[in-house]
Amino acid sequence: MTSKRILSVTVANKPGVLSRITGLFSRRNYNINSLNVGETENPEYSRMTIVVDADDRTLEQIKSQLDKLVEVIQITELDRTNIVDRDLALIRVNSSRSQRSEIIQIVDTFRARIVDLSTDTIMIEATGTPSKIEALIEILKDFGIIDIVRTGLVALNRGVVE
Amino acid sequence: MTSKRILSVTVANKPGVLSRITGLFSRRNYNINSLNVGETENPEYSRMTIVVDADDRTLEQIKSQLDKLVEVIQITELDRTNIVDRDLALIRVNSSRSQRSEIIQIVDTFRARIVDLSTDTIMIEATGTPSKIEALIEILKDFGIIDIVRTGLVALNRGVVE
Repeated sequence: MTSKRILSVTVANKPGVLSRITGLFSRRNYNINSLNVGETENPEYSRMTIVVDADDRTLEQIKSQLDKLVEVIQITELDRTNIVDRDLALIRVNSSRSQRSEIIQIVDTFRARIVDLSTDTIMIEATGTPSKIEALIEILKDFGIIDIVRTGLVALNRGVVE
Repeated sequence: MTSKRILSVTVANKPGVLSRITGLFSRRNYNINSLNVGETENPEYSRMTIVVDADDRTLEQIKSQLDKLVEVIQITELDRTNIVDRDLALIRVNSSRSQRSEIIQIVDTFRARIVDLSTDTIMIEATGTPSKIEALIEILKDFGIIDIVRTGLVALNRGVVE
């Protein structure tokens, strides 16, 4: 049975590394759910977070293929039961003056933030687990969504309490 | 002169699209600064945000190359003077009990959030412009950074006030 698996991959900042990694997924028809790559504390390395639909066998294949790339420094599968996972969305919705306070109430409930306000639109910044973001988007559909951009998931393991 | 340019690219959710796009950048040695891909309001489309170091001429070449890919629905260059841009970081730092309140004060100042606390570590979720995130990371270095993961930038145009 496939499920959404999260891989955190530390890679060397070399030309073509992103292309080699995504090529590896597409050649074998592995289904990438979300992907992002950002800087780390060390300018020589980037960290990619890849969410992929896979069963255990496929995931082992992916890890073994990634491991063969010289630019791949470390591969960690994150255990969903012991992580902090976050997605960030910017969402612009239609909002007449009379709808504003209702939208602001929804935004407060979700601990999201209003980041731009125009005559007839509101832009919202929301962070949270992907399911929280999706719940907010669902509610905002009533007002008419103009634009959404999402970062895809990032995650870190929780610390140990001794 | 090159500068960091932001491309927002709407793509059809088809196998291999990510690989074709990143391949296009690597074959021509275009330098990707950050990249992410997430869902949109329409399950058939994803939206990629790509930050690339480029001068005007290179950027025109990139746009023209992207435009040739059948999976690319729309390409927009975002104008830095008129956008809301956000990056999300999860940062885990060392924190003895005696350092906790100092770290919490820093986190409050940056309007970041504590998302995990263990015996000797603190995990922080921060959103903001990339330069704000970098300032926070710089300050947290004094405590010893254990782990960072960042989504890379997402952005939307601001609305018009009439």
